[in-house]
Amino acid sequence: MEIQIAAAKVNKYATSESGDTLEVVERPNGGLSVVLADGQTSGRGAKAVSQLVVRKVIGLLAEGVRDGAAARAASDALYTDKRGRVICTLNIASIDLHSETIVLTRNNPSPMFICRETGIDRIDVESIPLGTSRDVRPSITEIAIEIGLTIIIYTDGLVHAGKRRGQPMNTMQVLQSLLEDQSPSPQMIADTLLAHAVSLDDNRPADDISVLVVKVGSRDGDNVRRMTVRLPIDAGTRI
Amino acid sequence: MEIQIAAAKVNKYATSESGDTLEVVERPNGGLSVVLADGQTSGRGAKAVSQLVVRKVIGLLAEGVRDGAAARAASDALYTDKRGRVICTLNIASIDLHSETIVLTRNNPSPMFICRETGIDRIDVESIPLGTSRDVRPSITEIAIEIGLTIIIYTDGLVHAGKRRGQPMNTMQVLQSLLEDQSPSPQMIADTLLAHAVSLDDNRPADDISVLVVKVGSRDGDNVRRMTVRLPIDAGTRI
Repeated sequence: MEIQIAAAKVNKYATSESGDTLEVVERPNGGLSVVLADGQTSGRGAKAVSQLVVRKVIGLLAEGVRDGAAARAASDALYTDKRGRVICTLNIASIDLHSETIVLTRNNPSPMFICRETGIDRIDVESIPLGTSRDVRPSITEIAIEIGLTIIIYTDGLVHAGKRRGQPMNTMQVLQSLLEDQSPSPQMIADTLLAHAVSLDDNRPADDISVLVVKVGSRDGDNVRRMTVRLPIDAGTRI
Repeated sequence: MEIQIAAAKVNKYATSESGDTLEVVERPNGGLSVVLADGQTSGRGAKAVSQLVVRKVIGLLAEGVRDGAAARAASDALYTDKRGRVICTLNIASIDLHSETIVLTRNNPSPMFICRETGIDRIDVESIPLGTSRDVRPSITEIAIEIGLTIIIYTDGLVHAGKRRGQPMNTMQVLQSLLEDQSPSPQMIADTLLAHAVSLDDNRPADDISVLVVKVGSRDGDNVRRMTVRLPIDAGTRI
């Protein structure tokens, strides 16, 4: 088997810094965790908040702390630091090779999607962001690693895309038409969802948008781990 | 412009865990850093060492500490923890959008390569691993971000490939023939170097091998940041 992870991120229009932070960390007992946080508002302040949360979570995961406990610790740290006045959403997708499961930790009102050959599940149980109060609990979903499984996670920029124009994003519909194709790559799924959202916002995203896709595929031959990052930059402009 | 980063990693033959750790972190003042460490020996002990070093470095970079200072702090931490008995190589490749340069920090006897349209430079100034003594200094190279620049960094598994059979790797030669092609992608460069090394080791790598390639290309249109990870797993086997 092969775990394939893809992410696509875009900043709010005319904003030089994204309030979303996405990072990947190796788990000390085998596997990887992808951590995605979206700090309240946008720009530099939001970036500092989402970086604080991601850094806290990643540090704890690297020490072997369980995902749920890491999310709760990050929430307490944020609540203490900002006295409950700043919130931040958090998603952790962990490929846990110790338990041979994918563990999805969610403190984010935005739904996530779990796709299998049998259909697409929209996971939308109530989930509140970090930093809102003491003792915020994440919603945790644990599923066996099996070929064909695809998980889609995103920040609320995708949820709100198009609302300004009264044409909200229908993520389920876009996903359904995508998955009718023959096994789209995770990058294609992430890119298509993001492009759809950006077009609904007239190519001027009303918020930072990040889409994360995790797919369990069959092995394509070798046992090489690979990673790529593409970072567009404007000369003279920080992003 | 677009910064493209690619990495390819393989474990030592019949070893379930790589002693190499590679992670990417966002820089608080804009840009990214890729951190690659190779812990002494292989397997679980080496992994713990390289993770300790990468974690320390990433934590400091996220706080805004300069790359050279982060490397020295990681060396002191390793020296203190292991009393000078365990060493670890370290490379940091930072896309620093504040200074608009790429900063290459190196504590690794393995060379690195800087390719421009005018030719390929092999950077091989003496550089010692972390943890060998107090006050280990990194070798630092800072270069302007310009289109066509390609940087190749690797761990010593690549240097030692083929030596067992008396057919050592000639990285410069492989790079030269690769770069004669029309602008190979960073993933193709990393994959080709890794595949060459693995074949010299009779498809049974004598050590963990990691190859990291950073390339500055022209923008291909949109302003979307992208990341992909591919993690091959054997059912029932931790990697």
